[in-house]
Amino acid sequence: MTATTSPRPATSIGDPHVDVPALESVLLGRWGEIRRQARALLTDQRLHRVEGLSMAEHRERVLDQMRILATEGDVLRAFPAVLGGADDHGGSIARFEELIVGDPSLQIKAGVQWGLFASAILHLGTADHHARLLPGAMSIEVPGAFAMTETGHGSDVASIGTTATYDPATQEFVLHTPFRGAWKDYLGNAALHGTAAVVFARLITAPPGGRAVDHGVHAFYVPLRDPQTHAFLPGIGGEDDGLKGGLNGIDNGRLHFDHVRVPRADLLDRYGAVAPDGTYSSPIASPGRRFFTMLGTLVQGRVSLDGASVNVSKVALITAITYGNERRQFTGASDTEEVVLLDRQEHQRRLLPLLAQTYAQAFAHERLLETFDGVFSGVSDTDEDRQDLETIAAALKPASTWHALDTLQAAREACGGAGYLTENRLTSLRADMDVFVTFEGDNTVLLQLVAKRLLTDFSREFADADAGDLARIVAGRAVDAALHRTPLLRVVQTLADVGDARRSAGQVRSTESQRELLSGRVETMVSEVATALRPATKASKERAAVLFDRHQHELIEAARAHADLLQWEAFTAGLEKIEDPGTRQVLIWLRDLFGLILIERNLAWYLIHGRLSAGRARTVTSYIYRLLDHLRPHAKDLVAAFGYGPEHVRAAIATGAEAERQDEAREYARRLRASGDAPAPEKQATAPKQRS
Amino acid sequence: MTATTSPRPATSIGDPHVDVPALESVLLGRWGEIRRQARALLTDQRLHRVEGLSMAEHRERVLDQMRILATEGDVLRAFPAVLGGADDHGGSIARFEELIVGDPSLQIKAGVQWGLFASAILHLGTADHHARLLPGAMSIEVPGAFAMTETGHGSDVASIGTTATYDPATQEFVLHTPFRGAWKDYLGNAALHGTAAVVFARLITAPPGGRAVDHGVHAFYVPLRDPQTHAFLPGIGGEDDGLKGGLNGIDNGRLHFDHVRVPRADLLDRYGAVAPDGTYSSPIASPGRRFFTMLGTLVQGRVSLDGASVNVSKVALITAITYGNERRQFTGASDTEEVVLLDRQEHQRRLLPLLAQTYAQAFAHERLLETFDGVFSGVSDTDEDRQDLETIAAALKPASTWHALDTLQAAREACGGAGYLTENRLTSLRADMDVFVTFEGDNTVLLQLVAKRLLTDFSREFADADAGDLARIVAGRAVDAALHRTPLLRVVQTLADVGDARRSAGQVRSTESQRELLSGRVETMVSEVATALRPATKASKERAAVLFDRHQHELIEAARAHADLLQWEAFTAGLEKIEDPGTRQVLIWLRDLFGLILIERNLAWYLIHGRLSAGRARTVTSYIYRLLDHLRPHAKDLVAAFGYGPEHVRAAIATGAEAERQDEAREYARRLRASGDAPAPEKQATAPKQRS
Repeated sequence: MTATTSPRPATSIGDPHVDVPALESVLLGRWGEIRRQARALLTDQRLHRVEGLSMAEHRERVLDQMRILATEGDVLRAFPAVLGGADDHGGSIARFEELIVGDPSLQIKAGVQWGLFASAILHLGTADHHARLLPGAMSIEVPGAFAMTETGHGSDVASIGTTATYDPATQEFVLHTPFRGAWKDYLGNAALHGTAAVVFARLITAPPGGRAVDHGVHAFYVPLRDPQTHAFLPGIGGEDDGLKGGLNGIDNGRLHFDHVRVPRADLLDRYGAVAPDGTYSSPIASPGRRFFTMLGTLVQGRVSLDGASVNVSKVALITAITYGNERRQFTGASDTEEVVLLDRQEHQRRLLPLLAQTYAQAFAHERLLETFDGVFSGVSDTDEDRQDLETIAAALKPASTWHALDTLQAAREACGGAGYLTENRLTSLRADMDVFVTFEGDNTVLLQLVAKRLLTDFSREFADADAGDLARIVAGRAVDAALHRTPLLRVVQTLADVGDARRSAGQVRSTESQRELLSGRVETMVSEVATALRPATKASKERAAVLFDRHQHELIEAARAHADLLQWEAFTAGLEKIEDPGTRQVLIWLRDLFGLILIERNLAWYLIHGRLSAGRARTVTSYIYRLLDHLRPHAKDLVAAFGYGPEHVRAAIATGAEAERQDEAREYARRLRASGDAPAPEKQATAPKQRS
Repeated sequence: MTATTSPRPATSIGDPHVDVPALESVLLGRWGEIRRQARALLTDQRLHRVEGLSMAEHRERVLDQMRILATEGDVLRAFPAVLGGADDHGGSIARFEELIVGDPSLQIKAGVQWGLFASAILHLGTADHHARLLPGAMSIEVPGAFAMTETGHGSDVASIGTTATYDPATQEFVLHTPFRGAWKDYLGNAALHGTAAVVFARLITAPPGGRAVDHGVHAFYVPLRDPQTHAFLPGIGGEDDGLKGGLNGIDNGRLHFDHVRVPRADLLDRYGAVAPDGTYSSPIASPGRRFFTMLGTLVQGRVSLDGASVNVSKVALITAITYGNERRQFTGASDTEEVVLLDRQEHQRRLLPLLAQTYAQAFAHERLLETFDGVFSGVSDTDEDRQDLETIAAALKPASTWHALDTLQAAREACGGAGYLTENRLTSLRADMDVFVTFEGDNTVLLQLVAKRLLTDFSREFADADAGDLARIVAGRAVDAALHRTPLLRVVQTLADVGDARRSAGQVRSTESQRELLSGRVETMVSEVATALRPATKASKERAAVLFDRHQHELIEAARAHADLLQWEAFTAGLEKIEDPGTRQVLIWLRDLFGLILIERNLAWYLIHGRLSAGRARTVTSYIYRLLDHLRPHAKDLVAAFGYGPEHVRAAIATGAEAERQDEAREYARRLRASGDAPAPEKQATAPKQRS
């Protein structure tokens, strides 16, 4: 593809400049002040990861850090003002996400304590629980575990095996682990520090004189250990999960229960209560809906993992781009001057698309956080809002967690051997982030939830649409740009768009072309898989399951395409917030790079579906190279705008040390040449004596 | 793409069965007996990685393991028989590659000692060095560092800064580090255990009365530390590289030299000697050729990293496929029976293509090792053989090291939270393997070497080819299948093939179609980039450098395509070794899966270049699903044939423990149903009382 040698085109703004402080403010977003405070707190070395600690030492250090957070960390923002909090849901998550630059173990341990354990008491419990149980959880006087996952069941929470059978004679639940697979597992605070837990179990009770009914998963507050001796209470046992691939500052462990008696009052009964006589009641009639409502608070975890992952990607890019901008290797045009890595095409190709995607994810996360805040503050808390929030979180969390791993790895490799040294933190961060792609909802499972929602929207849209309706919907879409600003990009029919996409391919760079290509792909993929799955509605359960499984990969791909689009739309909307024309120009290039990389990644799809001709497909790649040329001079400013200082990045190679070394080496070479004492290279001297 | 629902087609062999022991023998290959011995040795727990050790403890343990190897490990096979070795080059590497299942740190530390330090004395030194220096290096009485890489220069060895200036007055070299960037860095054995090193430095000497000449990089034997006190000798200093992302059983460190005097006799002078009066002589006149000859022994490292990486991919797949075959999650067709993960399409999509590529790489590695053995044994040791060996190693090492990381990560994610536990080893292996992609030649740099070779072959082929020659070459290729059996797949013209490829696309599954598509891509890519670079031959150095850089990514992609083809050809040739018809059928499916995955990965390229129509491109994906269906029942046998036992895999989840848990859980559910005591699910019972 010789198109890559195209000369650098003229641009509307000849030599744009990035206004770093202004861009930093935009990126900090609505909760910028809280983020700044958190970052200021995180300059405190006591909150930094110390490498090389043993697992036991690391766990103790993180527990100490938790105590610092409990007193100095403003960690209760999400709790009600009456309980000492600030009713600030978005701000709480924003703050929490920043903890990751101290130590991911600290962020996750804080998440276990305040985001899961205390939060479950708050959201699943009622006034009595709040009064009795929240203070200890909030102050971490009671370190707590969130005992949902079992060895046998992770993402499929509905199938957990632990049972809580009500005994009206004593007004207690009998909490029991019936087999090894039902042990609670991977729980933070379970191995060591937790003195209580919120335990999820199938609530079984019988109405007076009736048969026992399994009411599905409910949450119970259960003391685990004697607070003094730290010995397990009777009937409770467990194991330490031991070393993990990362996050070793958290004491993950297993728990099992042998007919442990839990007082009736310790069922967290907001969504399901049991009367003294064993009668079950719930404000939500449908067991399925009740289950998903109870699990609704888990979305906090996904939202914050999304934000934390974006933050880690930022840190990795600061390190890799700083180093790539200083490190020299191999001569290029000159015999004596080695080239800065970031001036090499391949280095730009590896790092700058990741930078573009990190920006897209930062903007997407801000929108997700706003949606979250709307729902949790009650400002916009309809069923539909909640479903939208669940779906957006389920789409973005896989995208950003996988992206963080890709970015850390690319950064590590781009820094070579130096990237492998722990002092530069890339490998430790990657080890910690690894589990982000499978916990709090396995990414693959989450994407299937997104796909199901896309299919539901699709069929709802067309359930009783006659030809007239269809036309109206299609026409409506063509003119209604606001559609793309709704949080969830609803699925609409695409047949009429094919022609448009083809026409506009000539301007594949334009915002509208990118949008049509990206949204058209989602719509077509969903429509295709919906058509393929239609027979399932009339098939036997067996046949339907087989059919569904035969399209599992397509469903996941459609969900990923949707997540790509969400990020692209958020980036595009984010451009509106940028007033400085130079900054805006650079950010448009960066958004274009993101859009074109997405298109290039799925180029075969566009070609097969006739959305791009072979000729236009080639131009996608050549535009990408042009954009890399445009963006390269701004790479340093673009990572500076992330707003993390050296005390957050803490990588030896991101401190200018490499530039000093390079300068020293070049100065040595310069002086040697100037001195006239430089030895002649052999090829310029006499041929050496030939030995036989 | 509804084609994925195609019914399972009839096959030539209705229900093939894999003959596991026979397949295992094929995979063990020419050095099977040595591999079996090494694997038997590695059942010894003393050679196993112990997790959770501190860096200091891990280093000591690996040093102890080195001593075990030195006495019991048959580690001297590559050395001459007269020196106590076996003159067995291929066997030595085969054995060495297996060490990785004990602990990758051990493999790499052994590589530093015997494969680099002692090997440099052997290959770069002469009889006196062999007599004086080899015994200590071979017995590890003298643990040694291989001091080539500097902080400032890794892959670009030619530009290192350390100097060794000859002083005829004392007949010594003055070894000196002129600036910080010239510190030797990342050297195994340098931080702690090494008492000597082979140090690479620019040899500077003046003929009597003449001007000093820089003869480029040469190797010197340099004592580092007092063997008793372990204190650095005068003029030598260093630092510990400290913790790394993995391989922490190796004491990597830095070294610097302040005018350290090295006796003239300690220049390893096989390829460059200095007479007492300072006169330089060499059996190789060209400094460039001499440099590459001296670096030629480094190919051992690349060959063995290739083999070791393939072995790690095998271990990862044994774990993931065993677990995926037992673990159940989410119900499918039945309400009560959960589905085994490996029966899910997405799980097959994640793991089976990696299995196919691991087989391809195993076959490719065997051919590489045979080539290596031919060169190092002297059986086929022409310049061309050596260049072929270099190029194949430079192509395969990037492919297998990146593949090992991908495989470990996919395996880790496929095992969910269990995959993150250190007891299942996937995360530790990944951490250790991470550096494989940038050390012993950064993968990106190696691929550029491959690309340069492809370009050279291309231009050589056509340098003085008139039209008649061209036709002959093209015609020759079309009928000469033997061409593809030469170690390096030479680049030939492709214009005439386009039509063929289009015609044969109907049988995209056939061996010949796969070959045409894969080889045609390499040829076209090389031809395109050669055309684009042609102006560079007449351009200024500056312009040429810019032009070259503008095609850097294409060059790398062409080299990767070439590496893909090498693997595919090796797999295809390997099929010939399989006699049992059932096994052969399954392996053909596996090879087809590998070929089609390669084509699918680059589908956009085939579409843009008109090699596949949109319709045919769709069939690629549908064939892949059919192959997954065919292969899924054989997945367990295919990993069993890798021949590693539980004492090599050592993953708690690969021991059948999950199957036991699943059986226990299902038995519990079965008994409960049978007892009539099972609580009714709420949705089948009376609706719960509604609370207000």
